[in-house]
Amino acid sequence: MLETIKSPKDIKKLNIDQLELLAEEIRTEIITTTLKNGGHLASNLGAVELTLAMHYVFDAPNDKIVFDVGHQSYTHKLITGRQKEFASLRKKDGISGFPNHKESEYDTFDAGHSSTAISLALGLARARDNNKENYNILAVVGDGAIGGGMSFEALNDAGEAKNTKLIIVLNDNEMSISKNVGALSSHFANLRATHSYIKGKKRVKNVLQRINQSGKLVSLFIHLRNSLRYLLFGETIFDAMGIKYLGPINGHSLKDMIEILIKAKEYQMPVIIHAVTQKGCGYTPAEDDPENYHGVSSGEKSKKKAESFSSTVGATLCELAETDKKICAITAGMPLNTGLNEFASKFPTRFFDTGIAEQHALAMAGGMTKGGMKPFIVIYSTFLQRGFDQIFHDICLQEAPVTICIDHAGLCGEDGATHQGIYDLGFLRSMPGLIILEPRDNVEMKKMLQFASKADKPVAIRYPKGNCSEIVGEIPFEKPCWDYLARGGKGSVLTFGICLPVGKRLAEELNLNLIDARSLKPFDEKVLLEIADKPIFVLEDNVSVGGLLEGVLKFYSDNKVNVKVSGFSLKDEFVRVGSVNEQMTENEIDFEHVFGKIKNEIR
Amino acid sequence: MLETIKSPKDIKKLNIDQLELLAEEIRTEIITTTLKNGGHLASNLGAVELTLAMHYVFDAPNDKIVFDVGHQSYTHKLITGRQKEFASLRKKDGISGFPNHKESEYDTFDAGHSSTAISLALGLARARDNNKENYNILAVVGDGAIGGGMSFEALNDAGEAKNTKLIIVLNDNEMSISKNVGALSSHFANLRATHSYIKGKKRVKNVLQRINQSGKLVSLFIHLRNSLRYLLFGETIFDAMGIKYLGPINGHSLKDMIEILIKAKEYQMPVIIHAVTQKGCGYTPAEDDPENYHGVSSGEKSKKKAESFSSTVGATLCELAETDKKICAITAGMPLNTGLNEFASKFPTRFFDTGIAEQHALAMAGGMTKGGMKPFIVIYSTFLQRGFDQIFHDICLQEAPVTICIDHAGLCGEDGATHQGIYDLGFLRSMPGLIILEPRDNVEMKKMLQFASKADKPVAIRYPKGNCSEIVGEIPFEKPCWDYLARGGKGSVLTFGICLPVGKRLAEELNLNLIDARSLKPFDEKVLLEIADKPIFVLEDNVSVGGLLEGVLKFYSDNKVNVKVSGFSLKDEFVRVGSVNEQMTENEIDFEHVFGKIKNEIR
Repeated sequence: MLETIKSPKDIKKLNIDQLELLAEEIRTEIITTTLKNGGHLASNLGAVELTLAMHYVFDAPNDKIVFDVGHQSYTHKLITGRQKEFASLRKKDGISGFPNHKESEYDTFDAGHSSTAISLALGLARARDNNKENYNILAVVGDGAIGGGMSFEALNDAGEAKNTKLIIVLNDNEMSISKNVGALSSHFANLRATHSYIKGKKRVKNVLQRINQSGKLVSLFIHLRNSLRYLLFGETIFDAMGIKYLGPINGHSLKDMIEILIKAKEYQMPVIIHAVTQKGCGYTPAEDDPENYHGVSSGEKSKKKAESFSSTVGATLCELAETDKKICAITAGMPLNTGLNEFASKFPTRFFDTGIAEQHALAMAGGMTKGGMKPFIVIYSTFLQRGFDQIFHDICLQEAPVTICIDHAGLCGEDGATHQGIYDLGFLRSMPGLIILEPRDNVEMKKMLQFASKADKPVAIRYPKGNCSEIVGEIPFEKPCWDYLARGGKGSVLTFGICLPVGKRLAEELNLNLIDARSLKPFDEKVLLEIADKPIFVLEDNVSVGGLLEGVLKFYSDNKVNVKVSGFSLKDEFVRVGSVNEQMTENEIDFEHVFGKIKNEIR
Repeated sequence: MLETIKSPKDIKKLNIDQLELLAEEIRTEIITTTLKNGGHLASNLGAVELTLAMHYVFDAPNDKIVFDVGHQSYTHKLITGRQKEFASLRKKDGISGFPNHKESEYDTFDAGHSSTAISLALGLARARDNNKENYNILAVVGDGAIGGGMSFEALNDAGEAKNTKLIIVLNDNEMSISKNVGALSSHFANLRATHSYIKGKKRVKNVLQRINQSGKLVSLFIHLRNSLRYLLFGETIFDAMGIKYLGPINGHSLKDMIEILIKAKEYQMPVIIHAVTQKGCGYTPAEDDPENYHGVSSGEKSKKKAESFSSTVGATLCELAETDKKICAITAGMPLNTGLNEFASKFPTRFFDTGIAEQHALAMAGGMTKGGMKPFIVIYSTFLQRGFDQIFHDICLQEAPVTICIDHAGLCGEDGATHQGIYDLGFLRSMPGLIILEPRDNVEMKKMLQFASKADKPVAIRYPKGNCSEIVGEIPFEKPCWDYLARGGKGSVLTFGICLPVGKRLAEELNLNLIDARSLKPFDEKVLLEIADKPIFVLEDNVSVGGLLEGVLKFYSDNKVNVKVSGFSLKDEFVRVGSVNEQMTENEIDFEHVFGKIKNEIR
């Protein structure tokens, strides 16, 4: 059936039974491709029927579907003319794992970060109304994403846009019940149980026990929804904000979803449909362990982080917290991926998961330091972009000794433009008083965390998604300084992180020093002066603006040292999907490119 | 009376009558000093009694008071040992207009940006509990600030912190009622009317008519508070989130405020006190026109922006919108200060005020472009820091032709470290595809806005708070390029914005070219190559990281041009309070410093 679907128009000819069959085929396709190429498995399996129903009822691309985060858009891709290319998911020149406006006219906006869809959709709706056009706009938002402050700002504004047609589909897949639901929980359990019949499975176990921070907001909504007050007055918090609430509804029932979408279409005002879905629906391992199967790596059944920097961070923080009772750990909704699960279970009172709320998480960390705690916040580089102002205003300006552990720094490969960690270095270097470090291996990572725990200053430790370097240096890390990893007579390669292996080959082939610039702020001025008599080659998997290259150039300019510096940074364009190595090649920071360019400069 | 108050301890000896007398004296002091030195007038007048009551009931600095934004902390400063220095408010080496931890142990956190206090206070509270300490923590938050997404994230998390003692004082001074209050408005009007007796004045006029975006959230809370449901079940949205709601209460009644604070102290959980206050209370012009008197400039009765860049932006957008129906204007809660009031009244359906919600405002603008609109969003540089990720993810990545008008770019003087516009250039230059411009006068500003309206690309136009330059150039702005403002034979000064007058003097004294780098992205590479045969002096009121200097150095390094470049950027430290000129001197980018350093380099 799937191969007959050339465009969403073909969906509309099917009856419910056929649609259900199609959903099965799509699930199989998603499972097969994702286990092979890596990608977001559980979230996509949860959104199959919901997506089919939207395309059944609405006419994309005239009607616009805006996916929040976008990690649930595989079904959408498969039925909007990208079936044949789907095998190239997350490969170079292949299909992006997220919506991409360059890939298809059906992808209204690029996505990858959370909590943006309601803002984007509301903007689109206001433009439509201003231009007196007449199409439908749907924003598909997860329960985690709707708890982000940005979603709240958008809801608050949408409620004001009274006659603006806009449909928000709340894809509630991480259903969790916080304790305050109390007496209403049995009513709620009944509600949830209605969708346990899907595919004959009963996997709603632990629902009552699971307490999930990010689901808290939704449970609040549910609480209101199910409260006596709702029963008496038929009003939810959404209604009070001026947004019509419809639901809850079983998001895996094509029939129910289609019906409610048709109903929602009639409202001349913002509407929210509360669809209850199951993450990983249809794939038992993912249903059993949706967090581990949220995203999978290519060729792996499940993500293992045994040797990663992330796991070292988690383990080291546990060690440090054992002896120092002031150490605590914070995540913004990603305890597993940031390696903090062990910390969370060992030190539950010193572990804080704010949900998708990077701004609050960073400022809260700042606040904690004034009460004498030593917070370590672990966050992906790309999501740290949400907290630029809080790092400035609530950490550095307060001289707050927060340690920011920046995972996924530098090039990150397959997730594409939205997930690279290539901007943090530039914006962090502009912050007065912040120390910025990047370890080359797990030993150094541990040393840097120990250093940070005693620094009494804000410290950022950034580290790549990739594996550690195995290059040995001269000076074990004790305080911010650089290290010689090789000695040569013809000049110096200055680099850090995942570029070190390229640097090593260059140093070997061309008789150069290899210097690990592991302290990205402050620089090691002694080393910079030592190497200034011969050409210097700066290599970084980072945008040039504010990075190592520009900082080095400024140092020599300030010190009136006339030295030949050649730089190799990322191009000034968005990084395209591909492996890290492919991205390095495309940006001409791989060995061959750099070698070709510098070999004639060495004498 | 005021002069007898050496510390908050002295407050505690007073009776209510004496406290009221003290409040009067404080008001007089605030009015006198603010009209002389400039500063936040209306917001501070609204918080006098509320602050006295907090210090009466609690024991700072052992108990901690966390002010949100901090533009209401003058009373706090006057009674915490800074009375004598208060005349130096907002002067170099004087008292900061915002809380400052270096100034006093009573200032728990530095503040200046909105919506941070609940996060900071919650972090502090969690640290206190972890360390088994026992003090009280108060967060003072305005009704505008509590509508920011960051506050919501913090409230959402605070509700989870069930046994955590934390008092939030909601200082509701911009009371506004949105239409949806409907039948409850009379109950509400009664409520508000109770505080019109203050100082015998009746200035609550227009309360029912005023529709204010930023007050919407509060009116929602009020709506719930006053609804039948509340009357029946005694519960507000705050209660539903796990935060005990107390109020509303007259925030100008010392007796009531003291009583409710004593009551709040008893709760072993997060509590919110809803205090209704009047902005500008006690100063008739400010009561009548609180928006205009929110902040006043030194020596002025009220802020006039006749000749400013802001007013040119407002006027030009009106002109452009007259002929181009796709143009709209967006502000995040600052229609007056950003010069958009005229636009708002002329084009009400194309004007959007999101309240303090920069993230949403920027992403919404991105969304609008996909519906064919041309949004111009006007925002202060320092508040744009909140939207770093949205500029990346929802504007540049989408290739969305949004124009971001960045007011208060560069050094901004008296407001101190939290209000300088010195980071945007660095982070914006890292965004692929973004054009960044800075006009030197109003003629150029107009041309740049016209250019942006036709560019079909994201454009940022940054402009200083200060006056326009009156320096005449050679090439009227038509497209991104630089301009020679003077020709000389010994080298070139490369600068922009408020540094142009310094550049002009340098060019005259030392026979240099003066070049206006009015296109900060892309650079004018033709000019850069033209001037590369002689020394180049780069001058910017911007941090060096990612700024003009580093960009120029990289250009010459990439092009293998060996040229002597000397740079003068801001120091890598937080900017201190003072006038713009004083800040330039302190950062050694004033004429005397630069002249002294470069005169010997010219031959």
